Amino acid sequence: RIALPVFASDALSSVAYAPDEIFIMLAIAGASQYIWSWKIGIAVAIVMTAVIMSYRQTVHAYPSGGGDYEVATVNLGRTAGITVASALLVDYVLTVAVSISSGANYASAAIPAFQDHEALIAVILVLVLMAMNLRGIRESGTFFAIPTYLFMFAILGMCAYGLLQALGGSLPQAESAGLDITPRPGWEEPLSTFGLIVLLARAFSSGCAALTGVEAISNGVPAFKRPKSKNAATTLLLLGLIAVTMMISVIVLAKQIGLRYVDPHELSRLTMNGAPVPAGYDQHAVIAQIAEAVFHNFSPGFYFVVTVTGIILVLAANTAFNGFPVLGSILAKDGLAPRALGARGDRLAYSNGIVFLALMAIILIVAFDAETTKLIQLYIVGVFVSFNLSQLGMIRHWTRALETERDSAVRRKIYRSRTINAIGLSFTAVVLVVVLLTKFLAGAWITVLAMGFFFAVMKGIKGHYDNVERELAADETDKALPTRVHAIVLVSKLHKPTLRALAFAKATRPNSLEGVYVSVDEKETARLLEEWDDRNTGIPLKVLHSPYREVVKPIVEYATAIRRANPRGVVAVYIPEYVVGRWWEQFLHNQTALRLKGRLLFTPGVMVTSVPYQLRSSGIALEREEREEHRVRPGDLRRGRVAQDRDRQVPRS
Amino acid sequence: RIALPVFASDALSSVAYAPDEIFIMLAIAGASQYIWSWKIGIAVAIVMTAVIMSYRQTVHAYPSGGGDYEVATVNLGRTAGITVASALLVDYVLTVAVSISSGANYASAAIPAFQDHEALIAVILVLVLMAMNLRGIRESGTFFAIPTYLFMFAILGMCAYGLLQALGGSLPQAESAGLDITPRPGWEEPLSTFGLIVLLARAFSSGCAALTGVEAISNGVPAFKRPKSKNAATTLLLLGLIAVTMMISVIVLAKQIGLRYVDPHELSRLTMNGAPVPAGYDQHAVIAQIAEAVFHNFSPGFYFVVTVTGIILVLAANTAFNGFPVLGSILAKDGLAPRALGARGDRLAYSNGIVFLALMAIILIVAFDAETTKLIQLYIVGVFVSFNLSQLGMIRHWTRALETERDSAVRRKIYRSRTINAIGLSFTAVVLVVVLLTKFLAGAWITVLAMGFFFAVMKGIKGHYDNVERELAADETDKALPTRVHAIVLVSKLHKPTLRALAFAKATRPNSLEGVYVSVDEKETARLLEEWDDRNTGIPLKVLHSPYREVVKPIVEYATAIRRANPRGVVAVYIPEYVVGRWWEQFLHNQTALRLKGRLLFTPGVMVTSVPYQLRSSGIALEREEREEHRVRPGDLRRGRVAQDRDRQVPRS
Ligand SMILES: [K+]
Ligand SMILES: [K+]
Ligand SMILES: [K+]
Ligand SMILES: [K+]
Ligand SMILES: [K+]
Ligand SMILES: [K+]
Repeated sequence: RIALPVFASDALSSVAYAPDEIFIMLAIAGASQYIWSWKIGIAVAIVMTAVIMSYRQTVHAYPSGGGDYEVATVNLGRTAGITVASALLVDYVLTVAVSISSGANYASAAIPAFQDHEALIAVILVLVLMAMNLRGIRESGTFFAIPTYLFMFAILGMCAYGLLQALGGSLPQAESAGLDITPRPGWEEPLSTFGLIVLLARAFSSGCAALTGVEAISNGVPAFKRPKSKNAATTLLLLGLIAVTMMISVIVLAKQIGLRYVDPHELSRLTMNGAPVPAGYDQHAVIAQIAEAVFHNFSPGFYFVVTVTGIILVLAANTAFNGFPVLGSILAKDGLAPRALGARGDRLAYSNGIVFLALMAIILIVAFDAETTKLIQLYIVGVFVSFNLSQLGMIRHWTRALETERDSAVRRKIYRSRTINAIGLSFTAVVLVVVLLTKFLAGAWITVLAMGFFFAVMKGIKGHYDNVERELAADETDKALPTRVHAIVLVSKLHKPTLRALAFAKATRPNSLEGVYVSVDEKETARLLEEWDDRNTGIPLKVLHSPYREVVKPIVEYATAIRRANPRGVVAVYIPEYVVGRWWEQFLHNQTALRLKGRLLFTPGVMVTSVPYQLRSSGIALEREEREEHRVRPGDLRRGRVAQDRDRQVPRS
Repeated sequence: RIALPVFASDALSSVAYAPDEIFIMLAIAGASQYIWSWKIGIAVAIVMTAVIMSYRQTVHAYPSGGGDYEVATVNLGRTAGITVASALLVDYVLTVAVSISSGANYASAAIPAFQDHEALIAVILVLVLMAMNLRGIRESGTFFAIPTYLFMFAILGMCAYGLLQALGGSLPQAESAGLDITPRPGWEEPLSTFGLIVLLARAFSSGCAALTGVEAISNGVPAFKRPKSKNAATTLLLLGLIAVTMMISVIVLAKQIGLRYVDPHELSRLTMNGAPVPAGYDQHAVIAQIAEAVFHNFSPGFYFVVTVTGIILVLAANTAFNGFPVLGSILAKDGLAPRALGARGDRLAYSNGIVFLALMAIILIVAFDAETTKLIQLYIVGVFVSFNLSQLGMIRHWTRALETERDSAVRRKIYRSRTINAIGLSFTAVVLVVVLLTKFLAGAWITVLAMGFFFAVMKGIKGHYDNVERELAADETDKALPTRVHAIVLVSKLHKPTLRALAFAKATRPNSLEGVYVSVDEKETARLLEEWDDRNTGIPLKVLHSPYREVVKPIVEYATAIRRANPRGVVAVYIPEYVVGRWWEQFLHNQTALRLKGRLLFTPGVMVTSVPYQLRSSGIALEREEREEHRVRPGDLRRGRVAQDRDRQVPRS
């Protein structure tokens, strides 16, 4: 049960902006259209129920946590899988952008000084989240549970209290209740039937923002306690109930307080006594206005509601920071993303994903000036693409199960599951069409473009990996194996690292062994030759001449020459490498060695051996590496790797 | 002679802003103090003559082109050398900032649309210069010669023509001639003697901005034709004459046209009929106002003068982009900068220097809003620190020469040289004191701080290199040499790269050889084992188990275990490495290999061999590398590496 909060925050937080969108859309034709608000809410609730019932099937059939991506890939093929992956990647970015922008708007409802600075606050919040996730925070059950339960308590409690007041006739009106709404040009009364249908379609598709986040639980099944699927399915059910209840309550109460709410970009359509509201009028979010009215003589109540709403939005954004790298690693395993993302423990890969996500979200927030309404136009289409493909995949899954299943009791269950998924699919298909029709020009084209970009990149990466695999596939050609090894040791100075490299090279007993020194200065060369003779290593020293202190070219040419003279041999180049501890020391050493190695790698028949010499400071770096291995990684919890219900540090097994 | 232009642009360009500074400073006490302008000019000319005579000694004594840094280090010791190096580094940054800012101001004199956007124009210019230098442009003699000669012709011609008109009584007044200048508070008439001395001191120290760039020739002696030192000395003389003539002419002519010129930050002190000039009054630079007046009925003349002035300023900035990396490589050779900067042909190191220089200059330009006057307050102190230490070093040089020289004719010459340097030193010492006193609070403290920062960094780097050298110095301990080699080959898949690594490892005939495979997935492991048996390499395969797809840790532990069991042996780890051609392919491969190698390097007794497998795309990268080697590097010309007097591409020897 504790897993509810971690995965619920994304879905529950949608109630912080979905009702607002419904009112904004209806207001296009004036406040009189608000009578449709609760009916739209019911329609959205129906779709949400269908989707949730659908996902209950998914969590039973796919308990590995692959989510929509796995369902689509396994049942519909690679292309459908990549489509879903693109949609999910975009969805993660928008979850951050929308949730944080909404959070910033709630913050400025509580703190008037923040007005007009929402974009800046949103960017700062994203950076803070990014920094925390880079450091590594536990997706701890308790840490998430408390704010989530508080949020549920706050909204449901506020609505209950408000309804009580309304029944008793003592519910005040909203601060915006005295205003009128001028319809947009062309939308004045009386509305044609067609116009009304379009209006309701737009409001409905906007209201479907309430469904964003529902899919999260299917990604997190491994994190539940056993029986995992059953618990996940139960959690989904509870989630659905609570989310639907909250949304309907908010809509009903908003009507009760006589709210007037329009697109924040068109505040001039709000009029008081015929004149538009003054510039600087701050339109508060629906939940904020409700809280103001309900707690009109108890301001701590208002601040409490607004605060926990802000917190749940931040938690929702945080789930994206956890989920994005996990998705990246799944895609990497399938060859759709750089293989390095698939390796657990690769802190760099995870960090790259986190930074990339934060950067994309910040770009969106700045481009849209943290206007939640505008960002939501981009948000919904991606989610519903996933919904559709996921449910289509499930239908295919059940159909294939029917081909092999003989037990009639199980077959009946399969039929039932398939029907549920089919109903869900029909609903989400309709919604997807409505969303595309009503929102494409309003911003959904950006999402489609972004999805197309990710799709192309992933296909490109997969194509590349496939090509490389073919190129490298071992065939039956019995290539002649090399038989001789000619070793050369790079000598720049005669110090411990060089002596070690000579010793290691000698230990391999190559067919030929010599030191190679590039001469740039006559005096230095003479001095080195003297030292070499004194040391009496028994190894000959080859001196290459080079003008301009060019070190790499002469050595590469020499290695190539050896190879040409011995086509059946291999040239082993031994390069001393300083192992240092502090980050800035990297710039002071090994640069030449790196360039030389990079250049040598192009030469066939050559292998390059690094002989490390650990400087004292390397101990620092070693400790740092070992600390790193015990750090918490994003996604640990949802992959079931951390003991749940515990908040203290548990050493990883 | 062709070398004059390349090294002269920095010094000659100073006439584009030095006279302005003199007038600004004198204007503090009102326009009546302008009577001192030509006397200040004479004083600056005297100092310049002394400095130039001094440098003529330097180019004879140090024909290697080490410049002030070499003189200070050789004669005064490491600390003095680092001080000069810090001053030079700061000087390069300010050369760019001042020259480009001044250029932007001239541009907006010619194109009024640029007014108030000088900072943006300056930043764009810096970026363009940076891009060109990253690409690699030849410091071609002819390319530099033409604008430099044009500039000399333009200024001298303009002044000559202007004087002619003045003598004939037909010289118009400047556009600013009708204005009055309100003195700064506290500087009104009558001026106390002390106040006058302070005023003249400030004007004199500002006028010494004319000396910036004189030292450049000492850095470029190798670029002259033989006899190098004699030609360099002659060039210095010519340069001095021309520069002094230009500066005096400009000052005299400025007075003739009745110029009124104040600190651009205090334009309100310019009054017309008692009232300050309107906001938006655009004060043009002195040379621009002179050109306007002299060419009052021939506007092409005005545009010509302003244009070539702008061009010479850009060329002056470009000398910094060439000199900065060269200085970096000299410092690297002495262990004061990362060793990588010292290697010729390291495009990355040069590129880093160019980008760093551009970035620092841009920061200054933005911070000071491209206000040349403000930036000059930072500029002069660094240059004069170099002058002082350089001449002090020369005095020491001559003194030491006297100790060994017996020939009396030569001794007389040495005495003469030493006296010249001593006179120069006394002048520049006085100027340095005056500059510090008059400009410290005005901005020179920033320069001092920056110099201190560079000083600390270089000392730190030197200290580090010295420590490392001590730590690594080969001693007499006859460490037991390893005798056995245990080779393990990293096997991830059984494809060509792996087979090659196995073959190469086998060719070295180690004492023990086995493949190592980390098992993350049971099915994959079983498949690989089957392939391995089929292939019958005769090499055993060790399977390491790892949960969570963690590849690095098991291998490191295994290698450590082998080492522990065989303390007198060395473990050779063979890692297949894909050699790719396109930049983005790097992210898709080798990441695990890199991490593994990095981790293994901390383990004593282990060496890591990369066995490259060249993918087809690697050919692209190879061609790119080979093109790179023939590219022109910054500083080629001044290091005498490019045939002079030629503008066509000459393949490097
Ligand atoms: K959401
Ligand atoms: K989401
Ligand atoms: K090195
Ligand atoms: K200069
Ligand atoms: K300079
Ligand atoms: K790899």
